[in-house]
Amino acid sequence: MSSEYYSQALHGPFDVFEAGDLDLESGGKLRGGKLAYATFGALNADKSNAILFPTWYSGTTKILEQAYVGPGRALDPEKYFIILVNQIGNGLSSSPSNTPAPFNAAAFPKISIGDDVRAQYKLVTEHFGITRLALVLGGSMGAQQSFEWAARYPDAVARVAPIAGTARETAHNRLLAQTFIEAITSDRAFDDGWYAPGAVHRGLRAHARAFAASGFSQKLFNTRGWAGLGFTDTEDFVAGFVENHFLPQDPNNLILLARKWRDADVSRLTGGDLAAALGRIKAKTAVIAIDEDVFFPPEDIAADQQLIPGSALKRVSSIWGHLALFGVDPDWSRAVDHILTGLLATPA
Amino acid sequence: MSSEYYSQALHGPFDVFEAGDLDLESGGKLRGGKLAYATFGALNADKSNAILFPTWYSGTTKILEQAYVGPGRALDPEKYFIILVNQIGNGLSSSPSNTPAPFNAAAFPKISIGDDVRAQYKLVTEHFGITRLALVLGGSMGAQQSFEWAARYPDAVARVAPIAGTARETAHNRLLAQTFIEAITSDRAFDDGWYAPGAVHRGLRAHARAFAASGFSQKLFNTRGWAGLGFTDTEDFVAGFVENHFLPQDPNNLILLARKWRDADVSRLTGGDLAAALGRIKAKTAVIAIDEDVFFPPEDIAADQQLIPGSALKRVSSIWGHLALFGVDPDWSRAVDHILTGLLATPA
Repeated sequence: MSSEYYSQALHGPFDVFEAGDLDLESGGKLRGGKLAYATFGALNADKSNAILFPTWYSGTTKILEQAYVGPGRALDPEKYFIILVNQIGNGLSSSPSNTPAPFNAAAFPKISIGDDVRAQYKLVTEHFGITRLALVLGGSMGAQQSFEWAARYPDAVARVAPIAGTARETAHNRLLAQTFIEAITSDRAFDDGWYAPGAVHRGLRAHARAFAASGFSQKLFNTRGWAGLGFTDTEDFVAGFVENHFLPQDPNNLILLARKWRDADVSRLTGGDLAAALGRIKAKTAVIAIDEDVFFPPEDIAADQQLIPGSALKRVSSIWGHLALFGVDPDWSRAVDHILTGLLATPA
Repeated sequence: MSSEYYSQALHGPFDVFEAGDLDLESGGKLRGGKLAYATFGALNADKSNAILFPTWYSGTTKILEQAYVGPGRALDPEKYFIILVNQIGNGLSSSPSNTPAPFNAAAFPKISIGDDVRAQYKLVTEHFGITRLALVLGGSMGAQQSFEWAARYPDAVARVAPIAGTARETAHNRLLAQTFIEAITSDRAFDDGWYAPGAVHRGLRAHARAFAASGFSQKLFNTRGWAGLGFTDTEDFVAGFVENHFLPQDPNNLILLARKWRDADVSRLTGGDLAAALGRIKAKTAVIAIDEDVFFPPEDIAADQQLIPGSALKRVSSIWGHLALFGVDPDWSRAVDHILTGLLATPA
């Protein structure tokens, strides 16, 4: 089931960059690391029009393309060279589900946001020869990667737009991510990660339902905000939309991603000093928060934003809460496009 | 384990009212129904000083006593006759855990908020001979019972103060309650409710963690608001406080309560017309919401309150979110005492 899901047919077309062996922040090593990516538009002569956009939890570059890229949008392929990159563990880049034994499944090494960003840096600089990105942006775990990019490589990021995410996970957010992990691992069929194909469907459903109960706004459910998508009631929406999204995915992949999410902390760069880490950022910065976001409440995002010199906080409301990222709310998407267009027009 | 927990030693002293056979809203019957209750103070000659206070999810009358009753408090036993009553299924009143076969455990009938209120009405009128209560109040599921009391028996309730709860469960709240149920039932040791004593500890822990992730405010975790209780980190707090609370409880009891919570709907009284049901209320009404409540957001509570003639909405902030009900936040408790004192002083 998983291998059909993580296919070029569903999530392509994408290319694969051979990142080689990567020494990991955990002390482990990812051997023969691969980054799956997709590009839109053309790189200009001085390589100054490149935008990097990494994926969020359980997403692939296909949803980023559908929700954010197009003529007339902020991410316009007629103006920019847009690199959408799949994070490690999402099933297209190196992942528990697509790595041969002995480092497959539960034996896949632990990956951090910093590991992803270092691998992406190789793609950007070695493969494309780009020394400075016009913009790095991303939502949720993509925001974590965006913060990490701007703090780790301040001279390589002209502008940054982290959306609906924080630079260092809060205690509450860590707990939430942990409950998602446990929804899967508590399924006995999980068997320490050595499950039979399709066996962990109960755990995946439980994970999806926990995600739905906290990832969308209360108002979405209470006003039947999903009705426009053709769902009939709460059960129909949760099964048809949320379970449908997670059921075909690989449990070990999701757990690797959730752990990476849970443990994200840009202050690893500076010995735990968050102000110092975010103070390193030289990019023009627009931090975007969703008013109704239960995963990443605007106050938590604002606390990070205030540590970034000359940055701006932009709040956009959506009944969909965190999942406005998916592009399901045209008003939200328009407002974010407007913010990104303004940021891209800012000299940097 | 369960029977030691649900004991007079831990939760008493309490008395037991024999409510007899109860025809249930589900069409079933509770045979030989029992309501455990505790009283404080003395009933005056004209029986006009009685206050009824039913329990919330997973709580017993002991916590109500500790958090709300005492000299100088709004619920002052020197002035009022305070009846704290355990809801059906909480382990002290008739429950899956204390009912003999064949109606024990998973065979215990389905109970609704309306069933509880009708049984409590027998206790109040038949046992105590009270025709009109000076005040009915309750938090969370206790708020559900309070709304039901005031709408079902408008002439028997002089004042009502539902706290941190709604009259009809919202779609989001139903989903949340359902995830709590599934956290328990997905433990294979649950075995359709026919588990061995203590066997469902994994499910109870998962339930506790899901409850913690949504029941408290984000800020409580992010500012280490639990430190004053002696906990050292998130894990220590979640295990030492939340898992500690739920682990000794009976899984079937919790599921019965969570289903009752999930399906609460005062509009059953009026064929689904919520405005008509709440329009029946004659009591002086103070509806209290907690600003940071994720279970019952103030907007949802306000929507119900606005349907009650002449009612007032009172919002009180607490970093503890929904769990401020427990009495862990002295400022919140003082503010609520002040509201209740004002309500009790209002002629009705």
